[in-house]
Amino acid sequence: MIDMQNQPDFRNIPIDKVGIKELLYPIKVRDKSKGFQSTVAKISMFVDLPHQLKGTHMSRFVEMLHVFRQQVSLESLTSILEDMKETLGAKSSHIEIAFPYFISKTAPKSGTSGLMDYYCTIIGSSGISSSGREKNRDLILKVAVPVTSVCPCSKEISDYGAHNQRGQVLVSARFKKFIWIEDIVDIVEKSASCELYSVLKREDEKYVTEHAYDKPMFVEDLVREVASELIADNNITWFAVSAENFESIHNHSAYAYIEKGEI
Amino acid sequence: MIDMQNQPDFRNIPIDKVGIKELLYPIKVRDKSKGFQSTVAKISMFVDLPHQLKGTHMSRFVEMLHVFRQQVSLESLTSILEDMKETLGAKSSHIEIAFPYFISKTAPKSGTSGLMDYYCTIIGSSGISSSGREKNRDLILKVAVPVTSVCPCSKEISDYGAHNQRGQVLVSARFKKFIWIEDIVDIVEKSASCELYSVLKREDEKYVTEHAYDKPMFVEDLVREVASELIADNNITWFAVSAENFESIHNHSAYAYIEKGEI
Amino acid sequence: MIDMQNQPDFRNIPIDKVGIKELLYPIKVRDKSKGFQSTVAKISMFVDLPHQLKGTHMSRFVEMLHVFRQQVSLESLTSILEDMKETLGAKSSHIEIAFPYFISKTAPKSGTSGLMDYYCTIIGSSGISSSGREKNRDLILKVAVPVTSVCPCSKEISDYGAHNQRGQVLVSARFKKFIWIEDIVDIVEKSASCELYSVLKREDEKYVTEHAYDKPMFVEDLVREVASELIADNNITWFAVSAENFESIHNHSAYAYIEKGEI
Amino acid sequence: MIDMQNQPDFRNIPIDKVGIKELLYPIKVRDKSKGFQSTVAKISMFVDLPHQLKGTHMSRFVEMLHVFRQQVSLESLTSILEDMKETLGAKSSHIEIAFPYFISKTAPKSGTSGLMDYYCTIIGSSGISSSGREKNRDLILKVAVPVTSVCPCSKEISDYGAHNQRGQVLVSARFKKFIWIEDIVDIVEKSASCELYSVLKREDEKYVTEHAYDKPMFVEDLVREVASELIADNNITWFAVSAENFESIHNHSAYAYIEKGEI
Repeated sequence: MIDMQNQPDFRNIPIDKVGIKELLYPIKVRDKSKGFQSTVAKISMFVDLPHQLKGTHMSRFVEMLHVFRQQVSLESLTSILEDMKETLGAKSSHIEIAFPYFISKTAPKSGTSGLMDYYCTIIGSSGISSSGREKNRDLILKVAVPVTSVCPCSKEISDYGAHNQRGQVLVSARFKKFIWIEDIVDIVEKSASCELYSVLKREDEKYVTEHAYDKPMFVEDLVREVASELIADNNITWFAVSAENFESIHNHSAYAYIEKGEI
Repeated sequence: MIDMQNQPDFRNIPIDKVGIKELLYPIKVRDKSKGFQSTVAKISMFVDLPHQLKGTHMSRFVEMLHVFRQQVSLESLTSILEDMKETLGAKSSHIEIAFPYFISKTAPKSGTSGLMDYYCTIIGSSGISSSGREKNRDLILKVAVPVTSVCPCSKEISDYGAHNQRGQVLVSARFKKFIWIEDIVDIVEKSASCELYSVLKREDEKYVTEHAYDKPMFVEDLVREVASELIADNNITWFAVSAENFESIHNHSAYAYIEKGEI
Repeated sequence: MIDMQNQPDFRNIPIDKVGIKELLYPIKVRDKSKGFQSTVAKISMFVDLPHQLKGTHMSRFVEMLHVFRQQVSLESLTSILEDMKETLGAKSSHIEIAFPYFISKTAPKSGTSGLMDYYCTIIGSSGISSSGREKNRDLILKVAVPVTSVCPCSKEISDYGAHNQRGQVLVSARFKKFIWIEDIVDIVEKSASCELYSVLKREDEKYVTEHAYDKPMFVEDLVREVASELIADNNITWFAVSAENFESIHNHSAYAYIEKGEI
Repeated sequence: MIDMQNQPDFRNIPIDKVGIKELLYPIKVRDKSKGFQSTVAKISMFVDLPHQLKGTHMSRFVEMLHVFRQQVSLESLTSILEDMKETLGAKSSHIEIAFPYFISKTAPKSGTSGLMDYYCTIIGSSGISSSGREKNRDLILKVAVPVTSVCPCSKEISDYGAHNQRGQVLVSARFKKFIWIEDIVDIVEKSASCELYSVLKREDEKYVTEHAYDKPMFVEDLVREVASELIADNNITWFAVSAENFESIHNHSAYAYIEKGEI
């Protein structure tokens, strides 16, 4: 049976990334408190393709993932990236794994337990493709943290009350040594007007209401607070942080974004 | 060229609905203040298929829509539904047209103008299919109205502040004579803690903050308020109303639903 | 601290459903081959609220789910529904649990293993609310099965080739005794032009291409095939089946729908 | 009334982008054949914020858009970007306008008319923020073109048939002088196995089936074809092109990506 993908190509155009996308797969992700946790990920896996080859071998990506899925972590990513290059005969490899990650939290007063979800993405690259645009080795952790934000302007100009809403802070970070999802979540939740919980009893609701009202923050304040924590952390070599508020007085969002460090 | 769709089918199973779905098309919708407004709709068009035929003729739906798109309204729906039955040789027809609808609003204090978007769906049916489940003639208007909601519990138990958030009220209604999208929007916006605007200057923000704080409402309160208005309206023969709050203290929604009237 | 939710309400309007929605939580679902599998679910939990009470107690839903999450199945649903009524002091309860479910499959010729994802929803209700619209006890299993579909018309009228595409069949079923997700998946995959796989080697790709071309099916054929299987199954008391083809020659879908049985 | 946004900030962190996001608004976009067409856009508008200021004035963005909405084009973007800097007292401005764009097409044999939708995004920037990452002046046009793709491997190894599916090609381009959305669409549609139509009669379906089967293309082929056209166009200074196939034999996508030119 002919191997069409292995045929020569004469257009003389190398391809930066080729592979699979939007694959849903159950994975086990490294967890700070429990070792590993089970979740479901949306996965992309790409390699480069030199100009002289017609196509890549798509089925091999899924075969490799099928083995890899049991131990997904920032560390194990390095070895899958090397395997991808070898298995596909490529010079560069790229993987993106996006998944909801759950952290157990206790309500601030009642101590009731519940799980909070944080949407995370691990992005890894290795090697340099023909186009030469990529870094030789790259690893990015993205964490989306939902928060409460109280508007400082609304509080200041109103005789009582203040509009507030759910917001989402998205942190992307490059780092020297391993970092935990939990550490990024901590930085963001301490910076917000208040953090979110899945369960709040009445005494907790009183606490989060007053705590948030005492700490009003624009999206501008929120990205600056998170940025100043990330700047102070020597392990972080680059970051991008955005804050988006799903405004309770509008049907659109307020948004702020800061990027810093060497790419 | 053989007409495959016109071939006989021997499984003896009539089909309730067959046609096209997820078609994006620009349309003109009847507008209370301007006559018509331009928008973009997601459209489904179905007819029934008797047990003895293999298939329907999908291209005819799009050809009919291509003509119909210039004058979409609750009234014109009746004629397109009749055309669909005739053109497809069917006993029943069904259409769903979903689109963002824009209403011009002025900010409550500054009077600044802006457009607010409301996601609407017009659903129409005519005739009775072989399975006999449908009403002979049916017309439903659905309007999604985003609102501000302030939590009465949070306000009551806290020394200051109250958590609030954007919420969405979804009203579906059957009626005797024509109703305007604008009328449904009015009922909902008057019932909420506060309505939303696309533009608010500082004096407006003070107003909406205090106005909302003065009128705290659970999702339970909100659906009851809207329901009582719809019950009082003799033109409405059936309705379903839901309220969903995108809670600012949780990463999930609070939800309430009331349905009333004869289907 | 005052219990606002427990305050009287004088509008005299009972609420059909009130509770939480869009809660993301990790769960363990009953699995035919492995006992249980881990996945992540989107969850709604509602009860009714009598006319004389102002609100329900939202935090209790999450507390109950936090315990229930370890053993989710069609059977265990009955007990959570009873618990919900008792814990919330309600006459009726309703739960919806939607999640990707993974089934291990081997490619048809090479025997290579991979996981396929099927999006499932379990819907349960118990008791009758003040509005009296619901059944006293109701359980529905919904399974979305992605498939290949080859167009019979395109095959017939063309000298060579036939347009084909990914489609999705959605089966909702009520039943007398327990049914497995796997059984619904089997019925649909046998009815389609061809089933899908996450991994296919070259010999498999030849097989699925020819197999699908040998079995062209309209969406009309597909819903009829699945319907005839479900009609023949005495355990199924009601079903709705739809087929949606993401047409490769259009930017919209072809769609067919059959519903049968007593609600 | 105090202007909170105008208060000093002492954290010494400039903000790269701050403004509004996810605003839905009706706009008129420049159209090659009709002058302008009406559509609905999702809009983001940002400026930078120097380190010494606490916040930006969000309402001004919507006020400016309210005027600008009647004449959206690559040319008019330049003036709105200048207005944004002046109105917000900023050094840099950024705008993103995403909308479905409709082009009238006639079926290849029957000549039947219908509209095809292409999701487009216009992205513009002007000025350099404190962080200094941006280009001084930047304009990007993104066009998503849905296509048919027939798999060359499946065709080659199978005795008959070939799996095919809907795919999407996404082109982003920087250019010297004005380009039309229509021109990007043309390049992609000529490169694909076949282009899509909203209406196809039987003789058209025969044509597109055979035409596509005669021109099988991997995602790799597709991005290379489009890339070679864009490379040959002197007006294009940079582009990124991706092709994503919604595989009819898998529940995930095949994907390829090429980027070229000076940023």
